Amino acid sequence: MKINVMTDVLEANDRIAAANREIFNRNRNLVVNLMSSPGAGKTTLLERTAEALAGKAKLGVITGDIETSRDAERIEKHNIPAVQLTTGTACHLDANMVASAFPYLDLSRIDILIIENVGNLVCPAEFKVGEDCKVMILSVTEGDEKPLKYPLMFRESSLLLINKIDILPFTNFNMEEARANALKMNPELEILEVSCTTGQGIEEWVSWLTQCWQNRVESLRSA
Amino acid sequence: MKINVMTDVLEANDRIAAANREIFNRNRNLVVNLMSSPGAGKTTLLERTAEALAGKAKLGVITGDIETSRDAERIEKHNIPAVQLTTGTACHLDANMVASAFPYLDLSRIDILIIENVGNLVCPAEFKVGEDCKVMILSVTEGDEKPLKYPLMFRESSLLLINKIDILPFTNFNMEEARANALKMNPELEILEVSCTTGQGIEEWVSWLTQCWQNRVESLRSA
Repeated sequence: MKINVMTDVLEANDRIAAANREIFNRNRNLVVNLMSSPGAGKTTLLERTAEALAGKAKLGVITGDIETSRDAERIEKHNIPAVQLTTGTACHLDANMVASAFPYLDLSRIDILIIENVGNLVCPAEFKVGEDCKVMILSVTEGDEKPLKYPLMFRESSLLLINKIDILPFTNFNMEEARANALKMNPELEILEVSCTTGQGIEEWVSWLTQCWQNRVESLRSA
Repeated sequence: MKINVMTDVLEANDRIAAANREIFNRNRNLVVNLMSSPGAGKTTLLERTAEALAGKAKLGVITGDIETSRDAERIEKHNIPAVQLTTGTACHLDANMVASAFPYLDLSRIDILIIENVGNLVCPAEFKVGEDCKVMILSVTEGDEKPLKYPLMFRESSLLLINKIDILPFTNFNMEEARANALKMNPELEILEVSCTTGQGIEEWVSWLTQCWQNRVESLRSA
């Protein structure tokens, strides 16, 4: 007999994700599941996003890490409500972990909720948390072949941010190759090149995000 | 009732790892479990190691990836026997996966076997595969706080290679902070700074590796 433990785990997770989704609908939140390798720049992107969204939309953050609350502390400095989930040994956030943050966030006062997943290119893509969309970051120091090696995350994402383009000249990263590899995995993937250090491309990313939020509000209104 | 699924999984894995160990003892292999984030430079390190070890010790490689056999192909170009394990959805190698490579490698003709784990800073550190030691790479583009966020891998490793030091000036990575954070997690951790691009530090790494191999041969002789 073969027991597929993973199937059971994912089905249970889907049920909790659907319950999270109801809560997000009720509070009219756009929810983005943000994923990348460790150190690709998720928290720095959130800091730049907080600055760029100020006065335009109310941002909230749930951030996952194996240990430490450093990321939430960095984000809170920008006057953004942030909840840190420490996962212990789990290499991803699941729907139940995300739900455990709700008592500590006033979702009714948040427009855009970004869930910063654990730094990992594999498992975070397997677990829905009730999000509207997944966004991933690939930094140019990681290599242009990563879409071929970690296909699921590229397939599941709506937007790929290629980060750290300020240090592109010091790497052997081939931008055309990276784009082609990513689109081979997911022909509908949108791609933006950014540098969270210099600010290049941040305006385009924030436009993309606020457009998603407006679409979300529209669709909730007509529902 | 609470069932700790993870404990059972790890116990079963330990039994297979012990069986792998017997096989490595019989073949007098030094076995290194090499771990890092995606894109930190594991395969490039193996290419540099293959060049530096030529004529000194016989290298063999087992390399794990979610998909593609690109890493094994890169390594085989250096006339090194290499087996690619594709893990599908698993974000780490376990002892059983490593054992599945044995029919495709002549272990009796290998001195140093390096097992290149899946790119992931979390789960690879939880699963023994029968190795003598774990070595991890942290690249300077990932951030100096990573030892605090992903403590287990730093605790389990004997050696930390801090890679990509050629692009250190273009990052905000603080080397002293990184060293202090890593040693806080594991006071016995050895640390070497390397650049697989310029070759800096590769000689020290290869000395470390061949010293481990000589110690291994000595201890098997006296056993």
